Amino acid sequence: MFGPRDIRLTDDQRLDWLRLVRSENVGPRTFRALLNRFGGAGAALTARPDLARRGGATRAIRVATVEEAARELAAARRRGIHLVALGEADYPRALQAIDDAPPLLAVRGRLDVLSETAVAIVGSRNASAAGMTFAERLARDLGEAGFVVVSGLARGIDAAAHRGSMASGTIAVLAGGHDRPYPPENVNLLDALVTRGAAVSEMPLGWVPRGRDFPRRNRLISGLVLGVVVVEAARRSGSLITARRALDHGREVFAVPGSPLDPRTEGTNDLIKSGATLVSRASDIIDVLKPMIGRPPPEQPIDEPLATLPLVALPADGDAREGITALLGPTPVAVDDLIRWSGAPTPTVLTTLLELELAGRLARQAGGHVALL
Amino acid sequence: MFGPRDIRLTDDQRLDWLRLVRSENVGPRTFRALLNRFGGAGAALTARPDLARRGGATRAIRVATVEEAARELAAARRRGIHLVALGEADYPRALQAIDDAPPLLAVRGRLDVLSETAVAIVGSRNASAAGMTFAERLARDLGEAGFVVVSGLARGIDAAAHRGSMASGTIAVLAGGHDRPYPPENVNLLDALVTRGAAVSEMPLGWVPRGRDFPRRNRLISGLVLGVVVVEAARRSGSLITARRALDHGREVFAVPGSPLDPRTEGTNDLIKSGATLVSRASDIIDVLKPMIGRPPPEQPIDEPLATLPLVALPADGDAREGITALLGPTPVAVDDLIRWSGAPTPTVLTTLLELELAGRLARQAGGHVALL
Repeated sequence: MFGPRDIRLTDDQRLDWLRLVRSENVGPRTFRALLNRFGGAGAALTARPDLARRGGATRAIRVATVEEAARELAAARRRGIHLVALGEADYPRALQAIDDAPPLLAVRGRLDVLSETAVAIVGSRNASAAGMTFAERLARDLGEAGFVVVSGLARGIDAAAHRGSMASGTIAVLAGGHDRPYPPENVNLLDALVTRGAAVSEMPLGWVPRGRDFPRRNRLISGLVLGVVVVEAARRSGSLITARRALDHGREVFAVPGSPLDPRTEGTNDLIKSGATLVSRASDIIDVLKPMIGRPPPEQPIDEPLATLPLVALPADGDAREGITALLGPTPVAVDDLIRWSGAPTPTVLTTLLELELAGRLARQAGGHVALL
Repeated sequence: MFGPRDIRLTDDQRLDWLRLVRSENVGPRTFRALLNRFGGAGAALTARPDLARRGGATRAIRVATVEEAARELAAARRRGIHLVALGEADYPRALQAIDDAPPLLAVRGRLDVLSETAVAIVGSRNASAAGMTFAERLARDLGEAGFVVVSGLARGIDAAAHRGSMASGTIAVLAGGHDRPYPPENVNLLDALVTRGAAVSEMPLGWVPRGRDFPRRNRLISGLVLGVVVVEAARRSGSLITARRALDHGREVFAVPGSPLDPRTEGTNDLIKSGATLVSRASDIIDVLKPMIGRPPPEQPIDEPLATLPLVALPADGDAREGITALLGPTPVAVDDLIRWSGAPTPTVLTTLLELELAGRLARQAGGHVALL
């Protein structure tokens, strides 16, 4: 166990991380659990097939090969994309504090903007002219105040936010691979913003974003920032998911109000009713965030590569595994409660969970909860 | 001293009240002080010239004559206008609780709407179509929920609020006399609304409202209601004064949000920032006010007509009066503090203050504060 910003992966370690990240049934939380359990991505890769089989996997679980990972690393390098690992100095500090931070973040553009204090501006794709004008002005003002502006490169509010902060530095968070930006009409905007800012993605090159990738991406937007500003959002819109994630991550939520007769501002008005800070000018945001600069959220320690945990998994015996699995169901339960009810030793429970996870039978959720799939 | 809703003035008493109310240098707070000091309006009228002279009045202070008051009463009666006295059963309970409630309220239309639970809707004169549409809809919805809607008969939001609540009951609060409605274009609206609702004024018939009468009138709007809803208001607008008065009176403040790019909603957005409840539909108001129905604000006891206080003023001796006056200045001071610093007996201080007040040299302010003019 060591401080979170001390690590620097070797090329081999980065290759192992990438293989593990790109393997089936390994999400960010499973990745952390595996690293904490086995002390390194390499050891986890070795133990993995056994674990998955014991967890009840009925077929071979796909693991990225050395060749596939090496090919992705080389392709990224050719395009000037850095794969920054959780715990490395270049990894964004705020993002590192969320419990499902991507183990590897693919960064195109300037790495240094990732270290700056950031605020997100998000909103409707079918925004009004007033909304886009306001978003652009707000982004410019926040940029002049020293904040990097983060958004999702979408049409409407997102694009306006990137445009307004182009000169000061902006970060586009992509839902697909770096070579598959969405929407295509914003490719020029993306190419322009990386000269002073950056684009980030947790997905492999070639990945075409599907619907479910956008909510997943939204957690990166809120994770990267001290606060999220929502400019125009209808009820049940993606921007509200980002705002919800921001609350989960302990970040500030800001919303720009609008007429109750405009469905495009129903979501933002609701946010204000629920306690979000009303924004009518940049100072409304700056006044709240300025005192937080330099006090990033608490970080979670990462064990790679100097962990002192045993490198060999303690296999759970069949009976214990069956008893623990029987206690699980579709309703999420805290791992601590599971340990208590099972009566089994903690390492046995954790190993069983990893086994189930790698077999694709278990989902890890926020707040240390797990549920059977 | 007796319960506030027990009194019923005789014709003579009402005449005395009207004479005192219409006298120079007698505002609502002075009226209350005189009544509490002398036990009745008649006794106060008798003592008044002496008091004013001792307070330093350099010329005769105008007191309404019996004839003038009788003429006003008769003219009001001819027009079907009731002069309801503070403390009488028909006097609006919520209004009675404010410390500068008008001693006499001239009511045209139905007295019974004054007893119903009310909410005010106010806003810009140069409102947007969206703002007026929303105000009208809100007024209708609040009316259907059982609230009487109070407003100021102005162009724009006020007129829309009256229109929307015409069928359920609405109260127009006038800044001038009942025969001098402002603006003239809303005379038909006024005539229509009194069939199911009412118009109220504290000013005499024939009084043409001037600029300063509108802020004064606004305290009646907030005084009559459990809450004030502001729909569209620029910075430094009259509606914000009403909202401020509502806070002074311990009433709820609601505001309808709008785009930060629209100067017509700068004031309402600011109100929400300061803690006003954001309104995007009637239920936002009803949810807050419903639990308050039947629990009106605490009332201030009125001494007329059965007070047991001595009917004769204890004149302050010259030295005491001079000492007390020397302690006063343009900065408002609490009467309690003045009593403490002067070292004089309380009745002496109170009498001196009344003297100064009637001489036009002292202003009474909210919270029991006084200042030299």
